[in-house]
Amino acid sequence: MLQVWKEYQEKNKDRFLNELLELLRIPSVSAKSEHKSDMVKCAEMVKQRMLDAGADKAELFQTSGHPIVYGEKIIDPSKPTVLVYGHYDVQPAEPLELWNSGPFDPVIKDGKIFARGSCDDKGQFYMHIKALEIMVQTNTLCTNIKFCIEGEEEVGSMNLADFVKSHKDLLKADVVLISDTAMISLDTPSIDIGVRGLSYIEVEVTGPNRDLHSGVYGGAVANPIIILANMIASLHDENNHISIPGFYDDVAEATAEERKLMAAAPYYEKEYKDDLGVRELWGEKGFTTNERTGIRPSLEINGIWGGYTGEGAKTVLPSKAFAKISARLVPNQNSDKITELLISHLNKIAPPSITLKASLHHGGEPYMTPVDSKAYKAAAAAIKDTFGKDPIPVRGGGSIPICSLFEEELGIKIVFMGFGLDSDNLHSPNEKFNLANYYKGIETIPYFHKHFAEM
Amino acid sequence: MLQVWKEYQEKNKDRFLNELLELLRIPSVSAKSEHKSDMVKCAEMVKQRMLDAGADKAELFQTSGHPIVYGEKIIDPSKPTVLVYGHYDVQPAEPLELWNSGPFDPVIKDGKIFARGSCDDKGQFYMHIKALEIMVQTNTLCTNIKFCIEGEEEVGSMNLADFVKSHKDLLKADVVLISDTAMISLDTPSIDIGVRGLSYIEVEVTGPNRDLHSGVYGGAVANPIIILANMIASLHDENNHISIPGFYDDVAEATAEERKLMAAAPYYEKEYKDDLGVRELWGEKGFTTNERTGIRPSLEINGIWGGYTGEGAKTVLPSKAFAKISARLVPNQNSDKITELLISHLNKIAPPSITLKASLHHGGEPYMTPVDSKAYKAAAAAIKDTFGKDPIPVRGGGSIPICSLFEEELGIKIVFMGFGLDSDNLHSPNEKFNLANYYKGIETIPYFHKHFAEM
Repeated sequence: MLQVWKEYQEKNKDRFLNELLELLRIPSVSAKSEHKSDMVKCAEMVKQRMLDAGADKAELFQTSGHPIVYGEKIIDPSKPTVLVYGHYDVQPAEPLELWNSGPFDPVIKDGKIFARGSCDDKGQFYMHIKALEIMVQTNTLCTNIKFCIEGEEEVGSMNLADFVKSHKDLLKADVVLISDTAMISLDTPSIDIGVRGLSYIEVEVTGPNRDLHSGVYGGAVANPIIILANMIASLHDENNHISIPGFYDDVAEATAEERKLMAAAPYYEKEYKDDLGVRELWGEKGFTTNERTGIRPSLEINGIWGGYTGEGAKTVLPSKAFAKISARLVPNQNSDKITELLISHLNKIAPPSITLKASLHHGGEPYMTPVDSKAYKAAAAAIKDTFGKDPIPVRGGGSIPICSLFEEELGIKIVFMGFGLDSDNLHSPNEKFNLANYYKGIETIPYFHKHFAEM
Repeated sequence: MLQVWKEYQEKNKDRFLNELLELLRIPSVSAKSEHKSDMVKCAEMVKQRMLDAGADKAELFQTSGHPIVYGEKIIDPSKPTVLVYGHYDVQPAEPLELWNSGPFDPVIKDGKIFARGSCDDKGQFYMHIKALEIMVQTNTLCTNIKFCIEGEEEVGSMNLADFVKSHKDLLKADVVLISDTAMISLDTPSIDIGVRGLSYIEVEVTGPNRDLHSGVYGGAVANPIIILANMIASLHDENNHISIPGFYDDVAEATAEERKLMAAAPYYEKEYKDDLGVRELWGEKGFTTNERTGIRPSLEINGIWGGYTGEGAKTVLPSKAFAKISARLVPNQNSDKITELLISHLNKIAPPSITLKASLHHGGEPYMTPVDSKAYKAAAAAIKDTFGKDPIPVRGGGSIPICSLFEEELGIKIVFMGFGLDSDNLHSPNEKFNLANYYKGIETIPYFHKHFAEM
């Protein structure tokens, strides 16, 4: 079959690219209410593209947030069904001044597509729509395909959970296939066998009831920035171990064997540091970089603000300071439990000189794909077909909040076939997706369906 | 003389107010380059008002920053000369959403003028221009008066220093009179006998060379917000004592006698806390609130920012974090020395996982007026004349960067006759100046000239 798939893609590759660029031009930022109509516009385009690619039907499901796009192509109910999950929403593009071109004005440069969402996740879920087109047009589709492309992944998939629970029949499938992760490189293909969970909160620290003159009051009234800094500083100990009592209680410790396997994955510390422009790495003592992002939980401050942040100097003792704080979780940590632990710990360490308000943004559970599952084996075989070598199983650091829910509600495994790269600047200015990776993904996906149907 | 002064003011009080309101409508924010032309407009208005009030001459002196307004009324070179210093620039008005009315759209409510600069310092220096008018119009001026009203007090008076050094003859006087401080209340008049010095710096902490995905990199790369929080947290110890080695070396410790006098000033802790809306105060162990803001140095974070600060959640491990940091200094600390100490300490504690850039915004020296000086005695006598009681000498917490320079370069003492209140929201939203204080100031100032001329 290889030949017909390749030929079809070769003939249509410019169109495959242009269609993606059109999708990338819609600023579908789920976090910002000003983009509500862009979200609908984007969902409508995704729906139409499913139909154009050969889906039997496609429709929008409204939620209390942004709509979910569902589509399907059922060739034979007795054949295996693959549920493709992805998301058409993207992260906010700020800070805008660090982009070399407009985040929603995609530019091709040096074989890379630069745009917000190019890799995360528009470029990656769109590969599946194009793979469907190839299989339909070449009469080679051997599985049923269902699509569930949501618009709230970047804000916690809160409405998708309800949708999945109330549409179990519609979503009934044998495996969930997700392209929303990275591989090591085109030369060293890999498959993420785990994603971390997430607990994302925001805190507001209030000192005095108004901004004060720092001369008249300085030294006599608690400064909320100083208090917040103290609280943040206390969350890691001198070994960069998270110092919240109970935080590690449920962490599934990796075995010596697992750690040995991880250590075998290629890792070049000098290149890693040079790429990031740092002189020294940072992290939990006793663990390697891959372990720190793969098998260990982490706690980051994603944003902080308070007082005067404009040009020049203002001698103010501010009334308020804020921070966005998130933890990445590993098996068997539970997102709700960690969120509660985090909020109650912050309340406990908040001194009486200030008032603390801490609230949840969103969370998600960690997930692991067993390497002996049919899903993993089909993905590994597909990659071997098109890359010519076995993929390395790795633990990814990111989060896809919905994974554990799919498994619980639909009773099926999830497999990650990600074609991005860690250097794709996800969530950062100048996000990109290599054209070669986009086309390689479209080429590889049909093989997954073939192997999964045959196993 | 009392009678003619009072009568003149009574007849003209509405005009005295309207003239001030017009001045307050100009957004003369020295810190922001967008207000450069407003600064010139404001300076021109101040110049014209000096001439209208009876000055022999008034002119603008250009600097590399904002212009200085100089004016004078010389009645007799053999008489004492009073140099009035003030500033027509104001602090930035942000956060704008916390103002109940436009910061540059003055509103009179409950006998108070609400506007940025109403008290600090347009309302206060303008009292001197109106006092000049009263004395000229009633033929009662008994001193020579010089005005030096600058436009860079809120950003460190950097160009005023050069101006003073190069115009010693022009500024030659017997005393510097400044209204840019507060009194306890109209019922309990007080005179600030000291102002604190200032060292104001900004730091930029850079971690990775770009914003990173907090899942892919979280736990393995130093987060500049966390590093900055740790650095800030380390600047005070558990007793809220500033823990920078050498910081207190030059502090002139107050004697037991001085502390006893300070303790006699009225202070109501419950009212103080209630006014600020805090449950507990904060400060250096072993000192009272008045001591903490009067005789002790302090260190504040005036602003902090980094990462994602918009609506919703963004899982970013940011490249940069920033803070504005300032110290208030007391006799005999030196601003340059403390700035150097602060910057070198921050560089010393900066870990190798980040890059630190620390730079000076501006500084200023602390200043004390001797209570046995002729200047202080004249001010105290003037206050007794119009308030009916002796003022209490107090140590103020704010800074007027130029004081020590005036003394050094012109060889004369400075005296502070402030008519504001601590509750005037200086540097904060809803800055105000009580009408009663404005008129009382205009009423009192002529008595200072009278007593100073007679002593």
